[in-house]
Amino acid sequence: MTGKVLVWPADFSYWINLQVILEELHHRGHEITVLIPSPSLLIDHTKVPYNVEILQLSVTKETSMEEMNTILYEASFDMSKFSWWEMQIKLANIGRKFLLITKRVCDSAVTNKELLNRLQAAKFDVCIADPLRFCGELVAELLNIPFIFTFRLFYGNVIERLCAGLPMPSSYIPCITSRLTDNMTFIQRLENWLLYTVNDVIYSYYVFPEWDEYYSKVLGKPTTLCEIMGKADMWLFRSYWDFEFPQPYLPNTEFVGGLHCKPAKPLPKVLWRYTGKKPETLGANTRLYKWIPQNDLLGHPKTRAFITHCGTNGVYEAIYHGVPMVGIPFFADQYDNVVRMQAKGAAVEVDLQRMTSADLLNALKEVINNPFYKENAMKLSRIHHDQPVKPLDRAVFWVEFVMHHKGAKHLRPAFHDLNWFQYHSLDVIGFLLACVATVAFLVTKCCLFCYWKFGKTAKKKKIE
Amino acid sequence: MTGKVLVWPADFSYWINLQVILEELHHRGHEITVLIPSPSLLIDHTKVPYNVEILQLSVTKETSMEEMNTILYEASFDMSKFSWWEMQIKLANIGRKFLLITKRVCDSAVTNKELLNRLQAAKFDVCIADPLRFCGELVAELLNIPFIFTFRLFYGNVIERLCAGLPMPSSYIPCITSRLTDNMTFIQRLENWLLYTVNDVIYSYYVFPEWDEYYSKVLGKPTTLCEIMGKADMWLFRSYWDFEFPQPYLPNTEFVGGLHCKPAKPLPKVLWRYTGKKPETLGANTRLYKWIPQNDLLGHPKTRAFITHCGTNGVYEAIYHGVPMVGIPFFADQYDNVVRMQAKGAAVEVDLQRMTSADLLNALKEVINNPFYKENAMKLSRIHHDQPVKPLDRAVFWVEFVMHHKGAKHLRPAFHDLNWFQYHSLDVIGFLLACVATVAFLVTKCCLFCYWKFGKTAKKKKIE
Repeated sequence: MTGKVLVWPADFSYWINLQVILEELHHRGHEITVLIPSPSLLIDHTKVPYNVEILQLSVTKETSMEEMNTILYEASFDMSKFSWWEMQIKLANIGRKFLLITKRVCDSAVTNKELLNRLQAAKFDVCIADPLRFCGELVAELLNIPFIFTFRLFYGNVIERLCAGLPMPSSYIPCITSRLTDNMTFIQRLENWLLYTVNDVIYSYYVFPEWDEYYSKVLGKPTTLCEIMGKADMWLFRSYWDFEFPQPYLPNTEFVGGLHCKPAKPLPKVLWRYTGKKPETLGANTRLYKWIPQNDLLGHPKTRAFITHCGTNGVYEAIYHGVPMVGIPFFADQYDNVVRMQAKGAAVEVDLQRMTSADLLNALKEVINNPFYKENAMKLSRIHHDQPVKPLDRAVFWVEFVMHHKGAKHLRPAFHDLNWFQYHSLDVIGFLLACVATVAFLVTKCCLFCYWKFGKTAKKKKIE
Repeated sequence: MTGKVLVWPADFSYWINLQVILEELHHRGHEITVLIPSPSLLIDHTKVPYNVEILQLSVTKETSMEEMNTILYEASFDMSKFSWWEMQIKLANIGRKFLLITKRVCDSAVTNKELLNRLQAAKFDVCIADPLRFCGELVAELLNIPFIFTFRLFYGNVIERLCAGLPMPSSYIPCITSRLTDNMTFIQRLENWLLYTVNDVIYSYYVFPEWDEYYSKVLGKPTTLCEIMGKADMWLFRSYWDFEFPQPYLPNTEFVGGLHCKPAKPLPKVLWRYTGKKPETLGANTRLYKWIPQNDLLGHPKTRAFITHCGTNGVYEAIYHGVPMVGIPFFADQYDNVVRMQAKGAAVEVDLQRMTSADLLNALKEVINNPFYKENAMKLSRIHHDQPVKPLDRAVFWVEFVMHHKGAKHLRPAFHDLNWFQYHSLDVIGFLLACVATVAFLVTKCCLFCYWKFGKTAKKKKIE
């Protein structure tokens, strides 16, 4: 049984990852329609081999690129130059700015009645959305179709905790941007607890309210971003236990990290990606290419190490092929990614802001010559390959499940019917404390009364 | 690659379920050795088609049967006759009594040096244990081999929460014996919270300590039952989201409920299980059998309803074949099982202690004639059948994974490195509250001092 899939993508590497799912769905005969904002940077609507609906925006590709560059520049700051608090506010502001750009795209979709009518008439079975760019869930809600998120942890882990209901105990699940592992000292647990709490407050009171209002306005009923996001039938996380620290999850979440990885194809003998003028000192055994497929290179038997900025997709290709890494993170989750690979013994980190060529060389020598790193990279690779079902097949299975069953309500935790203090049983605990306090108060009063009454009598007697 | 599997089974329906996994492992060429206590009731060592090591106990089968009957009789009490507190204590006492019987079996294994040496020499790759009967984990620890639990929720959910680290928010995950659903009122959430807390206290301070001591003595180092149980590489829960309310789980837990179900074989036309004398009033179209395969009967296209005591295995066979149920629970988790099936609209409950034949007839008519029940039973059946991997295959996959990789440490949450107040961040929250209290105290003191100092001066000035 084939069906119709509507897609709300995010740009850049998020799109690369999503495309793999779409290809497989297309291969299985499903009809795919992608909503592409006109100033998209990596999503080229002329090359997308599916139905395309262009969301016409007034900004040009150039303006959009400039905006993104500004955000990326702001995001790749030298962390050591800021205090902990400054950094949290800086990160939240970057997130907020990015989301405001997103809002334009959202507007161009939800205010276009003609487009909505066309989409409604097409009778889609499911919507696949990337919540990095909000609004896919809003479009799905307007069209009244089930939707699935394809997701990489971000925004201070607020969405997965507060909107999906994922339990993330701060005592052993490090918050994104914390650079902590699952093995923390008291001070680190304190920091992690504060990080979760500060993020909850910032996002709940600073970032989300305008979205809550916007969603309420569009849907014509009081609602919140979280409530609409929480309707997702399945959350496909781009991670797995070869990468992530083991953490609790829910029946409507699947960890499908590395779904884009595949066996390597053969390569020419030696090569080099380089877009500038060919250097004159280049040896005859080095070939220059404008672009080479990273996956094939990592899968080459002679590849000894991978120097990477630690994007999730690249790290997964290294895991897939069992290649140890030298990580030079830039921004966003990349710092946390290298921490995970270091904790699992498959990488060495080099600080971009401070590194010398000697640092890089030493790190490279370490991961190449110390068998510890190769062994651990191979161990992660074995874990990755030894799963009951391949990540891509699991992702596609759940998309088809939601299409066939018109949702997956049986996987939805009752978390969604509770507000946050009910969920944490704070009302129950508060009630019990109030009971205890009342009893303690009454007992004290009684004791005092008795003491006063009988103490007085005794005193009186004594005097008599 | 085939290997050697050691088995620590529990008796009765637990054994029926475990056997299905063993059959499949045997079929795949693994060598299986089962440790069978001499007075086992359903596990007949003469009929077990694997290697058998008999654990010789001084009690006879008859005595063991009597003991079990006493416990079963105590456990199948009329719940409405007891207060909430009495019931919790009664249930904990029943659990404790059962566990003390278990201790004899444990003793017969861990004090038998010759047996342990033989098992050690056999070099097992994995131990499969049912934690209903403690000690499998202790034997595995003594032999230094990885182990896997096959598990049905019980003992007040204490083991899965405190030993496995499964987050079970009391706000929406009903405690076993509560008969609650995942949709609770404030009073029900209060009751559920108390139930978890009371169970934690009863088991931690009343039931487990003697086991902690026993395990410490046997291993010659201070340890606890929970610590040893927490070393399980995989927990195979005999449930799934067609049966259980959706709840958080962990990477080292798999929900493999219904792994024993299979398509039905054809049956003779009409039949009746009956072990007594043939009644003279019996119609010619009713055939009597001493035992008939329940699964084949439930899978018969003319089966309209299933009258069941709501044991997990039976309920799963009904789910598998999409048959609505009339539930008449007896004891243990059966009350909770019928609550789940009622909440999902696939069953009607009849109270064993109070029912009349009219009640039973009405319930039967309801599930047969009201299409609501059949529709929901079919929906559960579809959910059960539409999984990425069948439950039995998932169970066997993880057993083989643990054998090949010598464990599954990458799935183990860092929960196990924390004590309970660290896990719940109580030390962090306590520290922060202490900081706030100190600051508040200092500010108050300062204010008072200032008031006293300047107030005095002002007064003085006024006087002047």
